Amino acid sequence: MTEKRNAPAATPALAVTMGDPGGIGPEVVLKALLRKPVRRACRPVVVGDLAVLRRCARLLGLPARLVSVRGIREIPRGAGAIPVIEPCASIRRHRWSAVRRDHGAASMEYVRHAVALALAGEADGVVTAPICKEAIHRAGYRFQGHTDFLAHLTGARRHAMMLTGGGLSVVLVTIHVALSAVSRLVTRPAVLEAVRLAHEAALRMGRRRPRVAVCGLNPHAGEAGAFGDEERRAIAPAIRAARREGIDARGPFPPDTLFVARSREGYDIVVAMYHDQGLIPLKMLAFERGVNVTLGLPIVRTSPDHGTAFDIAGRGVADPGSMVEALLLAARLCGRGRRRRLTGTDRACRAGAKIAAR
Amino acid sequence: MTEKRNAPAATPALAVTMGDPGGIGPEVVLKALLRKPVRRACRPVVVGDLAVLRRCARLLGLPARLVSVRGIREIPRGAGAIPVIEPCASIRRHRWSAVRRDHGAASMEYVRHAVALALAGEADGVVTAPICKEAIHRAGYRFQGHTDFLAHLTGARRHAMMLTGGGLSVVLVTIHVALSAVSRLVTRPAVLEAVRLAHEAALRMGRRRPRVAVCGLNPHAGEAGAFGDEERRAIAPAIRAARREGIDARGPFPPDTLFVARSREGYDIVVAMYHDQGLIPLKMLAFERGVNVTLGLPIVRTSPDHGTAFDIAGRGVADPGSMVEALLLAARLCGRGRRRRLTGTDRACRAGAKIAAR
Repeated sequence: MTEKRNAPAATPALAVTMGDPGGIGPEVVLKALLRKPVRRACRPVVVGDLAVLRRCARLLGLPARLVSVRGIREIPRGAGAIPVIEPCASIRRHRWSAVRRDHGAASMEYVRHAVALALAGEADGVVTAPICKEAIHRAGYRFQGHTDFLAHLTGARRHAMMLTGGGLSVVLVTIHVALSAVSRLVTRPAVLEAVRLAHEAALRMGRRRPRVAVCGLNPHAGEAGAFGDEERRAIAPAIRAARREGIDARGPFPPDTLFVARSREGYDIVVAMYHDQGLIPLKMLAFERGVNVTLGLPIVRTSPDHGTAFDIAGRGVADPGSMVEALLLAARLCGRGRRRRLTGTDRACRAGAKIAAR
Repeated sequence: MTEKRNAPAATPALAVTMGDPGGIGPEVVLKALLRKPVRRACRPVVVGDLAVLRRCARLLGLPARLVSVRGIREIPRGAGAIPVIEPCASIRRHRWSAVRRDHGAASMEYVRHAVALALAGEADGVVTAPICKEAIHRAGYRFQGHTDFLAHLTGARRHAMMLTGGGLSVVLVTIHVALSAVSRLVTRPAVLEAVRLAHEAALRMGRRRPRVAVCGLNPHAGEAGAFGDEERRAIAPAIRAARREGIDARGPFPPDTLFVARSREGYDIVVAMYHDQGLIPLKMLAFERGVNVTLGLPIVRTSPDHGTAFDIAGRGVADPGSMVEALLLAARLCGRGRRRRLTGTDRACRAGAKIAAR
């Protein structure tokens, strides 16, 4: 690493949140940022708590030289240094594996600050370590997790979750809802929006003419209406509308055969109707290596595909593989982001973006 | 092959239906029965149409010596001979890839006759080639497919579909229903029955103390009721009830992580709540090698995990891999079946079994 202080670097600057201080966030962030491919791909700055990170490094014997900085322009030179921005007061009573109000409040401040850096153009992208839903609720937040908080912070009116790993990328039409509610939420506009976002995401990942495969909802994609009419009512019309917009969308396909290697090789990205339809195949192909990407935001945002894992926090056994992939993908998306022109969505979002109060 | 005419052989006798005459059934049956491992594992008799089978063999240049027999006791000696029973008049106007009333009627007669052979104790098990739902409907049948026809023929009051392949065995609580209807059908009794059948099936497949994993229905298995209450209302109570019966059932597990290699290795069989929850992972692991087993019948019955494939019928390109696996598994299940004592279910079913009129 031969970066010069304040020098404009070719590699993208990533704001990396530490996540819930009691979870495995601090550990996977430090472990990942010590990996050479990560250090080569980006200039990271951790948004978190210096004392907690130092405690974590000491506990696990990690050779991390942590330095406090106030902004991205201060990122220091030197191979071993990991710069840390502290956007709020230090955690007073840090506890591994504990669900705590102060942990929850701090974890949200890290996200808020990282997003502000990205919206201001100081950071090129944001990578988030896992937060704890119960802890943020105790801290007074009513968000379900990162995704809706990010949408709120950036003023994004549409967004979707993409998961990628093991050669498969899946965009979900519905996410954390009861299976019984899925049918009601699989509407033509919802599917069309997911197809558009999938198409845009594949473009950003470097596909010139993305081929988008769309799952059916029902067994055998409804077998011509024999069981379920969502394919006729919502999914097929959305695919036709997307094709009229110039998107190479195909389907609806029987979900059980689409994820077979031979079928999915014909497509760059898959639109799945519900959580497990996309995540069962993804986790089979890329367990502990999957990356979560929020589509539709005016900023690049990735995260590892795991939670706080309180059961193993502070023990040094957490696998940073997914965080490594999240950092590498964010760097790649930022690189492409800087070469491409902003889309209409980006401009609208940036114009409307606000660092909103709770 | 050194079998003697009419001699009681150690290998199980399997009645193999030809399936819809216009589909790939005749082709995969012939191709599979010419494979050495199959010929070593069982004494097959095809229940079908001799003229169609001869036409198929000639068309594809298969070295099959087809001989007409009236019953299983007549199975001839000789390596190349494939005995065929014709339970009904020959198909008059056989057409590859055609949906025809006479094809449908004949395909159901083959099943009826094969089941009669098994119930009479002449055949040890039944293996069925695919039938065409539309063709059987044209022939006046109101069944959805093999499974409900077999339940009807054998008087089985409970039954479930198991799919097995690639080291995974999955029993489905619901099968060919709209996804929006699944929640309503996932009841405590339905899940308990599937768990019992899964346990029995694993015993028959040679597991001494089967470990049964049960999927949740919702993302993250409902995350403690946050999205969906089927886990609390139906699935967990069914698991507790099964455990009280001495079954080592566990769960409900988050569906997206259960099928990851490391998780599923801890279990012998998985109970899935709906079609794609079980079939997405199964087909990823065993595409064109999966076997369908009907549980709860008083007879052994397996089938390949594909349909009539009218688009490639009569062209010689059909892959017999799944039919080979179906024959081998049926032979294995029969072998164990003859060594074990009949279960209560078997006796009840056999007592009530009837070769029912339409």
